[in-house]
Amino acid sequence: MKRLEDRILKDGKVLPGDIIKVDGFLNHRVDPAFMRELAQEFARHFDLSDVTMILTAEASGIALATVCALEFGIPMVFAKKAKSDNIEGGLYKSEIVSYTYKKNVTLILSKEWLKSTDKVLIIDDFMARGMAVHGLIDIVKQAGAELRGIGIAVEKGFQGGGDALREQGIDVYSLAIIDSTENGTIQFRKQ
Amino acid sequence: MKRLEDRILKDGKVLPGDIIKVDGFLNHRVDPAFMRELAQEFARHFDLSDVTMILTAEASGIALATVCALEFGIPMVFAKKAKSDNIEGGLYKSEIVSYTYKKNVTLILSKEWLKSTDKVLIIDDFMARGMAVHGLIDIVKQAGAELRGIGIAVEKGFQGGGDALREQGIDVYSLAIIDSTENGTIQFRKQ
Repeated sequence: MKRLEDRILKDGKVLPGDIIKVDGFLNHRVDPAFMRELAQEFARHFDLSDVTMILTAEASGIALATVCALEFGIPMVFAKKAKSDNIEGGLYKSEIVSYTYKKNVTLILSKEWLKSTDKVLIIDDFMARGMAVHGLIDIVKQAGAELRGIGIAVEKGFQGGGDALREQGIDVYSLAIIDSTENGTIQFRKQ
Repeated sequence: MKRLEDRILKDGKVLPGDIIKVDGFLNHRVDPAFMRELAQEFARHFDLSDVTMILTAEASGIALATVCALEFGIPMVFAKKAKSDNIEGGLYKSEIVSYTYKKNVTLILSKEWLKSTDKVLIIDDFMARGMAVHGLIDIVKQAGAELRGIGIAVEKGFQGGGDALREQGIDVYSLAIIDSTENGTIQFRKQ
C-alpha cells in the first residue's frame, strides 16, 4: 500500500537493533483518518462476508483492530498479556516470546468470547518473527474456530515471520513489507 | 447514560472484591456499534471544538479512545506501561499503583506526541480509585498542556476517584456511575 510506505518513509525511524519506529501514526499516537485507510485496504483484500470476529493482542494491536471493527461492523476481541484479576477461569492461553519486551508473556483470552463457530480475522500493527501472531493462531485453534486470514500493517519481511505463515497456506496480507533497513535505509518488498 | 446502565445490568457481572466485569462489550471483547454510541455521548457533553488530543492508558482504554478519535476526528495517544525498547528517550513518566494488577506501574508517553499547546481530553474505560487517570493528569501537567475534561465509561463511584477529581473542579463525565454492588446488585447513581 503506497500510502503506508510513503508515510513510513516520511515519519518512520530506524533505531539500533532493526527496530522500526512508526509510533507517530500507528502504535503510540494514533492518526484516526489514516488508520481508517488501512482498514479499508484490508477490506479490499479479505472477503469479510462471513468473518465473525477480529482478533488481536494487547496493547499496540488494539487501536488498528478497533478501527477495523468499526469499519467492518464486526466485533473485536483482544488477547491480554499475563494475568489480570478481572478475568475469571475459562481461558485460552498461549505462551509467546515477546521481541519487544524480550521475555516470555502469556496471551490469554476468555473462552466466552471466541467459539468454534467463529470465523476469525487476525489484525496486528506489526509483525517481525510473528511470535504474537503464532500465539493468536494457537488461540484460534484452541477455540476450534476457523482462521480466515491475517492482516498486518507493517511486516519486517527480513525476519521471516510472515513468509513462514504464507508457506503454510495462510493468507497473510501486510500493507507494507520492509525487506531491509541496511544503513538505516528502508527498502520495501514489491507486492 | 441509560443504554450503558442497561447493558451493564444485562451483560455485566459482579465478581468477588467489588470487581465489575463488563468485558463482553467494553474492554476485552469490543462491540463497535455500542462503543460508537458511548463516544457520541461524550461528544454531547464535552466541547470538542478546540480539543487537539485524546489521551488514554494502555491497554483497556485504547479501544474506547480509538473509537472517540475516529468519531471526533481528533488524534489519540496512549500512555504505555513500563519500558519497551521501542520508545527512545524524551519521555513523560508517571508512576501509579494499578488496582487491577496490584503493583506499581510506570506510565510513559513520548514527549514528541504531547505538547504545551495541546488541549487534552482524557478517555478511559473504567475508573475506580482513579490511579491511572491521576497518572495521565500528571503527564498532561508535565507536558504543560491543558486538560479539558475526563470521559469515563464506567465509574465505581463508591471508590471515590471520580468525586475527588470533581472536587478539584475537573469536568469528569462518567457514562455510568456505580454507587454500590452490595449483595451483587448494581446500583447506579442518578445523574
